[in-house]
Amino acid sequence: MKTVYLDNNATTRIAPEALDAMSPYLGELYGNPSSMHAFGHGIRKALDEARQKVAGLIGAEPEEIIFTGSGTEGDNTALMSAVSTSKGKDRIVTTEVEHHAVLNFIKRLEGKGKAKAVYLPVDGEGRLDMDAFRKSIDDKTAVVSVMFANNETGVLFPVGEIGKVLRARGIPFHTDAVQAVGKVGIDVKKLDVDMLSLSGHKLHAPKGVGALYVRRGLKFSPYLIGGGQERGRRAGTENVASIVGLGRACELAGERLDEEARFIGALRDRLQLGLLRLPDAMVNGDRVNRLPNTTNMSFHYVDGEAILMKLDELGICVSTGSACASGSPEPSHVLRAMSVPPTAIRGSIRFSLSRYNTESEIDATLDAMAGIVKGLRELSPYGPEKSFT
Amino acid sequence: MKTVYLDNNATTRIAPEALDAMSPYLGELYGNPSSMHAFGHGIRKALDEARQKVAGLIGAEPEEIIFTGSGTEGDNTALMSAVSTSKGKDRIVTTEVEHHAVLNFIKRLEGKGKAKAVYLPVDGEGRLDMDAFRKSIDDKTAVVSVMFANNETGVLFPVGEIGKVLRARGIPFHTDAVQAVGKVGIDVKKLDVDMLSLSGHKLHAPKGVGALYVRRGLKFSPYLIGGGQERGRRAGTENVASIVGLGRACELAGERLDEEARFIGALRDRLQLGLLRLPDAMVNGDRVNRLPNTTNMSFHYVDGEAILMKLDELGICVSTGSACASGSPEPSHVLRAMSVPPTAIRGSIRFSLSRYNTESEIDATLDAMAGIVKGLRELSPYGPEKSFT
Repeated sequence: MKTVYLDNNATTRIAPEALDAMSPYLGELYGNPSSMHAFGHGIRKALDEARQKVAGLIGAEPEEIIFTGSGTEGDNTALMSAVSTSKGKDRIVTTEVEHHAVLNFIKRLEGKGKAKAVYLPVDGEGRLDMDAFRKSIDDKTAVVSVMFANNETGVLFPVGEIGKVLRARGIPFHTDAVQAVGKVGIDVKKLDVDMLSLSGHKLHAPKGVGALYVRRGLKFSPYLIGGGQERGRRAGTENVASIVGLGRACELAGERLDEEARFIGALRDRLQLGLLRLPDAMVNGDRVNRLPNTTNMSFHYVDGEAILMKLDELGICVSTGSACASGSPEPSHVLRAMSVPPTAIRGSIRFSLSRYNTESEIDATLDAMAGIVKGLRELSPYGPEKSFT
Repeated sequence: MKTVYLDNNATTRIAPEALDAMSPYLGELYGNPSSMHAFGHGIRKALDEARQKVAGLIGAEPEEIIFTGSGTEGDNTALMSAVSTSKGKDRIVTTEVEHHAVLNFIKRLEGKGKAKAVYLPVDGEGRLDMDAFRKSIDDKTAVVSVMFANNETGVLFPVGEIGKVLRARGIPFHTDAVQAVGKVGIDVKKLDVDMLSLSGHKLHAPKGVGALYVRRGLKFSPYLIGGGQERGRRAGTENVASIVGLGRACELAGERLDEEARFIGALRDRLQLGLLRLPDAMVNGDRVNRLPNTTNMSFHYVDGEAILMKLDELGICVSTGSACASGSPEPSHVLRAMSVPPTAIRGSIRFSLSRYNTESEIDATLDAMAGIVKGLRELSPYGPEKSFT
């Protein structure tokens, strides 16, 4: 049975081109880039090239890129740096729908008395309340951290608009762009972003590598401490092969950005349109300002987990926002913040596509979903015409 | 020109067996182990197996292993956890010769007023002063962090003896075992170790992956915060392929430990013996309690950097403890702590071997060194018979 992988916001396949680029560094070219001998020097050149490619994808200068081990590390580092260099300012402004790498880190800072946080609400479409944002910032604000695109719904936040407000006020702006980089065009200079986290494995590079953009001139304090790697900004021997893979994956994504956004967006729209024909189906989140690869849909009166498992039996991989499936004790904090009704959260499924999906996979998924939703509805004690008692 | 790589304490070649094990996870098996579908579940099983193998090499239980992104991350995490769970105790006892991932992190904690540190001295052979150690611990001691083996000299510390003292006093004991794991037998239970850091790329696994052993029952606080991975002890999508590679590398190292220690030790001794025949050559550090793969030697009256560069021209890779070459503004803090004379530090070279070295490589190195040292001595303004003015 062939796998139909529609869970690309969870993780992606390494691009064959990226794996090819990595290959020598997993084999013969294993030197340490910090070494003085020529064998090490050659490795350092590969790092420099990868840094240029990553920078190029987001409009940064190479020296503004710090390689990390994950999106989580980038988020934690950015927030900790902002708070520890903020000189008395202790307010963090963020949103209710951030990734846990931002939310849980801020909660820890709050717990330790190091920060006071404001969690901005979103509306029913997952859109940020810009008035609430403007009111939230003040002279005590150490950093604003707002994600570029939401991982569950794909909704894009108005990063440029936020950046403009904050740059004028001199408040550092971090964006968790883990889900956005490689899917939509990003220019950190035009968007007035000060720090941006990205993760390799969301854009067809390996797991275990990421990058943090830190604007030149921004005060910065490292989170991992030890040797002088990354110009003293991130200690630990560089993950050379994976960094090279990240560079190549960024280069690929940049070359194909518009073309792939069209291709993947058309597949996503085909899937969404087909699924909306099912009764009591709806899309969660703004359908306009959204990543081209994502649609989060609810099928009322059925369990998302049941759908997930039935699809899994057919080799079709998706995610759900319900409690168990997300590995968290609570149903999706994102859908709750959007005030999605509990029955719709229970029946929510995230479909996230990539360049490797095909039209026939989408059609197979539509066929499967029609049968699954119908079957589950017949078994369900709930439904529009049934009692809810 | 074939490379003769004698810099294995800097980094190692990935074992072909480890790369083979990783390969499926760099390709078709790219799922996220946290996913609910079967494609993700299969990946989780691979993580569990790797965890067993890593645990097996150091005598731990699998659930006591937390996968990390580096040795540095393990060291930082262990120290931060110990300090933040110590309830009012703020003393850290460590040594003057730790890796910078320990030393610089402790210095940061001191700078923030979170800890007071005691740096234990070593003698001329790099051996820990056990009397100073016993006197250093008190009721305010939050954690003791002493490395298993020194990265520059290979000198082994009396970890079991330290562990026994600390266990009796109920003081947590962390050891940075990055250079020791896979080279000497380690049993964390017999040695009374509470936390142990290891790094993949020092034992023929990839760069960018490591592990932290945390004894069951020890209070623990995570350093990277976000999702619930690693049972809530280390957030971030697991670096599956590299973790699988680490597992296989640990398995290999365990199977061959004694045999390889004998083989590599014999090569190292052959090298050392040959080099000691050169005039004014000496070994830095205890020659008995030492890693089998390492010898740190000084060649008085010549520059280590000059030796390194001459060797490099012949494709022979080594390290030196002098300032520039170590990437640090200061000459080796380890050799200085051992009171090695400045002229000997300047002329110090670290040779670190692996299972992939051969007798003919050692003999080629000996030939090269004889010519290089003789040539450099003739050029040098210094020497026993020359003026030092």
